[in-house]
Amino acid sequence: MKFAFIVYENMTLLDFAGAYDPLTRLKSMGFMQDFAYDVCAPKESVRTFEGLEIKPNKVKNDLREYDYLFIPGGNGIAALLTDEAFLTWVQNSSPHAVMTAVCGGALVLGASGFLKDKEATTHPNLMQYLKKYTDQVSQARVVDSGNVITAGGVTASIDLGLYLCEKIAGSEVRKKIQKQMDYLL
Amino acid sequence: MKFAFIVYENMTLLDFAGAYDPLTRLKSMGFMQDFAYDVCAPKESVRTFEGLEIKPNKVKNDLREYDYLFIPGGNGIAALLTDEAFLTWVQNSSPHAVMTAVCGGALVLGASGFLKDKEATTHPNLMQYLKKYTDQVSQARVVDSGNVITAGGVTASIDLGLYLCEKIAGSEVRKKIQKQMDYLL
Repeated sequence: MKFAFIVYENMTLLDFAGAYDPLTRLKSMGFMQDFAYDVCAPKESVRTFEGLEIKPNKVKNDLREYDYLFIPGGNGIAALLTDEAFLTWVQNSSPHAVMTAVCGGALVLGASGFLKDKEATTHPNLMQYLKKYTDQVSQARVVDSGNVITAGGVTASIDLGLYLCEKIAGSEVRKKIQKQMDYLL
Repeated sequence: MKFAFIVYENMTLLDFAGAYDPLTRLKSMGFMQDFAYDVCAPKESVRTFEGLEIKPNKVKNDLREYDYLFIPGGNGIAALLTDEAFLTWVQNSSPHAVMTAVCGGALVLGASGFLKDKEATTHPNLMQYLKKYTDQVSQARVVDSGNVITAGGVTASIDLGLYLCEKIAGSEVRKKIQKQMDYLL
């Protein structure tokens, strides 16, 4: 099981951290020793919208080896939507991968061609832009369309991460991770 | 208004990002142009518990200039509690500063001497260790003891951040930030 967290210039840090926390606990809390993950970026260092510099452990690497990809949102998506090199990088993932996104990250999935005939959601303020990529726009917190799973704005990233923990490792594991995160119990 | 976010080796990223997101929106959403913030660390690069490398914009700098300090939790606190250089760095903040912490960060405040005769909270699993520093241990999500404000585990960081937004800029601003974060509305 290999998971790729995509990061990029001007993403929102909490969009990334919300899903990164519960998913990485699959390994750190001992539930799945074979859960492997990378933080992947199009360049060697990226600055979040808030100004924090982070260093990915993989740079513009081959994404075909991952079972899951995750794309956070943030102001930086405006630039990504017309960044052919970035979109091509994401498109060249495994055809069997599950593509996941939170907030404006869903628009990047749309621009990459993954939302055709798929139900999806995004930040409440971005619904109109999502309609460009799919007729099936949902207001739900997390929307599972099989090989495409999307979630609402910013903090919905936590709910997406926990949803994926349950999908990957079952409801008992999800409950233990959620409790350790002291989240909505 | 100057805010210091302290980061360190093996902190939990979501502990930091949860409060960092709403507080930095005080500036990015245009509510407080004079809201200034730094990410401060004892060294030039730190790796979170999950493995992400982040670069602070201030290294072992003078903390006396900040009105607020924030300390996240994570496995790294075990080492901090006996790290005299780190504790002295935090102790040398302004005597007028408000010291804030989430999760195990509260223990660092305790080891630095800030919890004497103060009501405080921490992660549910860490309550017994908090008792070493104060008799007034609370189970509340956020505990405001005036110049010391603490919150529960991991995701309680979001609630602490929103609480501080309200304290600093009022309830209307807090509501707008919370809505933009798509959080529990």
